[in-house]
Amino acid sequence: MARPLKSREALEAIFRPKSVAVIGASSSPEKWGFKIFKNIIDAGFQGPLYPINPRGGEILGFRCYPSVKEVEGAIDLGVIVIPAKLAPEAIRDLGEKGIKAAIDITGRFSEVGPEGEALQRRLVEEAERYGVSVIGPNCQGVNNPYHGFCASWPLLKERGHIAILSQSGTVGAALMDWAAQERLGVSAFVSMGNRADVDEADLIAYLNTDEHTKAIALYLEGVKDAPKFLEAVKGLKKPLIVLKPGRTEAGRRAAESHTKSLAGKDEVYRGVFKQFHIHRAETLEELYDFAKALAYLNRPKGKKILIVTSSGGSGVIATDQAAEEGLDVAPLPQTLAEQLRSFLPSHFIVGNPLDLTGDATAELYRQVAEAAAPHYDTIVLLFGDPIEGASEVVSKDRGDLVIFL
Amino acid sequence: MARPLKSREALEAIFRPKSVAVIGASSSPEKWGFKIFKNIIDAGFQGPLYPINPRGGEILGFRCYPSVKEVEGAIDLGVIVIPAKLAPEAIRDLGEKGIKAAIDITGRFSEVGPEGEALQRRLVEEAERYGVSVIGPNCQGVNNPYHGFCASWPLLKERGHIAILSQSGTVGAALMDWAAQERLGVSAFVSMGNRADVDEADLIAYLNTDEHTKAIALYLEGVKDAPKFLEAVKGLKKPLIVLKPGRTEAGRRAAESHTKSLAGKDEVYRGVFKQFHIHRAETLEELYDFAKALAYLNRPKGKKILIVTSSGGSGVIATDQAAEEGLDVAPLPQTLAEQLRSFLPSHFIVGNPLDLTGDATAELYRQVAEAAAPHYDTIVLLFGDPIEGASEVVSKDRGDLVIFL
Repeated sequence: MARPLKSREALEAIFRPKSVAVIGASSSPEKWGFKIFKNIIDAGFQGPLYPINPRGGEILGFRCYPSVKEVEGAIDLGVIVIPAKLAPEAIRDLGEKGIKAAIDITGRFSEVGPEGEALQRRLVEEAERYGVSVIGPNCQGVNNPYHGFCASWPLLKERGHIAILSQSGTVGAALMDWAAQERLGVSAFVSMGNRADVDEADLIAYLNTDEHTKAIALYLEGVKDAPKFLEAVKGLKKPLIVLKPGRTEAGRRAAESHTKSLAGKDEVYRGVFKQFHIHRAETLEELYDFAKALAYLNRPKGKKILIVTSSGGSGVIATDQAAEEGLDVAPLPQTLAEQLRSFLPSHFIVGNPLDLTGDATAELYRQVAEAAAPHYDTIVLLFGDPIEGASEVVSKDRGDLVIFL
Repeated sequence: MARPLKSREALEAIFRPKSVAVIGASSSPEKWGFKIFKNIIDAGFQGPLYPINPRGGEILGFRCYPSVKEVEGAIDLGVIVIPAKLAPEAIRDLGEKGIKAAIDITGRFSEVGPEGEALQRRLVEEAERYGVSVIGPNCQGVNNPYHGFCASWPLLKERGHIAILSQSGTVGAALMDWAAQERLGVSAFVSMGNRADVDEADLIAYLNTDEHTKAIALYLEGVKDAPKFLEAVKGLKKPLIVLKPGRTEAGRRAAESHTKSLAGKDEVYRGVFKQFHIHRAETLEELYDFAKALAYLNRPKGKKILIVTSSGGSGVIATDQAAEEGLDVAPLPQTLAEQLRSFLPSHFIVGNPLDLTGDATAELYRQVAEAAAPHYDTIVLLFGDPIEGASEVVSKDRGDLVIFL
């Protein structure tokens, strides 16, 4: 029985809740129940926020409720940070209160053996009975900086255009750290955890219509539900980049042990990725870089590439790399060569790569890039030693690729 | 006529000069003649240092001489920072003074066309007439932190075990920047420039007997003198790692244009590298990483590798990568599995990769690594989220590989 993709509405309360309850919120700073609650506040969440803890009292100035049922107002989303054995009942409470969405951060479910598997089955039963959509369990939560909503860590508030979906919390967090370091931000982050309910297919379909997402970066150890996944990628309009280990037999076994699901033969994945134009990354760095390029750069119209450098050696390395990737490091057309010779110092060798040598100035780079733009699809500007004003000569519209050594 | 490798003595004055003259030293802080002179001082050079400048006066407290011939004491090495057209005469002056070594930083020789080529020929003629060994011209100089001698930039004083040789100044400087950032240091740095006289073969042979060098990282666009190069690598006892672009036709053409020499067919290089156990890097990052590993880590005795992680996802990625590199991510031997189960929490899955989960402590890592050491050649310790005391459990003697996410 193929499960249908979740509707946009079902996931809306997870990404854009109007009001949130944190089940297991805590006033002890070392507990996740405190850290998550604080991150939601610090991210700037604007709606009503309810800490749920039977001990009562206050947390960070918010009055605690003993149960979601005691809250008078409506609640869109429950974030669950209580021990696994209490989670199924928490889902039931949400359901009885009419809450249709939950994020379960807590671990010790299917990933720890038979007892955890039984707990996870009970959690799913409650979720299905009440129609609650659940992220997790055993996950690192959800962050939507466009909604000021971070039920996750690390806290990242910068708004960007890459959506990060990860089957591993730490792998996702590593990507988030890079996005934070580069001040690039994200459009959304979801640590999917055990995917007891909501899976990568649901999220891909949702983000496909998200206005802020321009590329989806996915760390995936194995597809949860193949027909659903195919349904999601069939309609995909945005670039999807996947890091999927299991290229080797040892990797496949490790993935299956980690996710307690079939990782599947790599040939099958290769075929699907190719058919649906899914970009495959081989390393975490590639996953990040490919997503960044696809989200932020214009797609070049063709393969012709000009390499402009202040370092001859770097130009040679870049040429080799570009040619290996199938790009065309094409000789300068006669007209362009003549034009360049008219303003470049006479001792320069006019070619591709074009070595502006240590005498390079930002103005020289600008002149060269403008002259070359009609002749090339991509212009690589390689800056060796620091050059004053270098970043100002870069034009996104021209499709410049920039490398600072 | 095959040229012989330079003797150790001929190069000793370049790496360990007792006294140095800087021809073209300047008191203008924006000039290379100032920057180089200052770096020699700041690196802590202990011997007599003579700025040579016909204008006289003082530079940074050192009395200027109008010519090396006016210096009364003996000089081991001349560092040349004057325009190309004056360089051949400078070499002649060195020769007449009995100085047997020079580093010519200045450019505009063979790399800029026929006029520069003629100048370079004259420079070589003077060097050969007087038996002066010359590094460069058109180079970024030499640094030997063990001698407190940096006639180069960036200034790096940290003493390490990687020797960096580069045909490109900027590529070499990029490697130096990494070595500085990581506080790893180098045993020597040589920017070889146009290699009019001293070439990579001479330097490899010299560094092969240098007590501080444990690995040689070489950026090479084309071998200068094939028989000499083969002579040098034939007797090599230390790991040599080479980044050699020209794997593609476009890259080969770019290399030949840059170095004004035959880059040669890549098949020939592949054959030579294989025969003489030279490690080939495909990127600058690999050149640095391979050199670092070969200089600082014990060589594992075999291919058996255990991956210990606090992040399941990272463990899966590492397993896939290790298997792809031909390593054996071998299952735990029965005795080890039992030993681990005796102290690991019962909900842990005992396997390889071994996922210590978010509950991992430094102590757990230590216990696991010690128990596993007799069974594996390499133990990878993967730290996901920061773990207090993590770095203390790492043992170089055990051959641990450590990755902080």
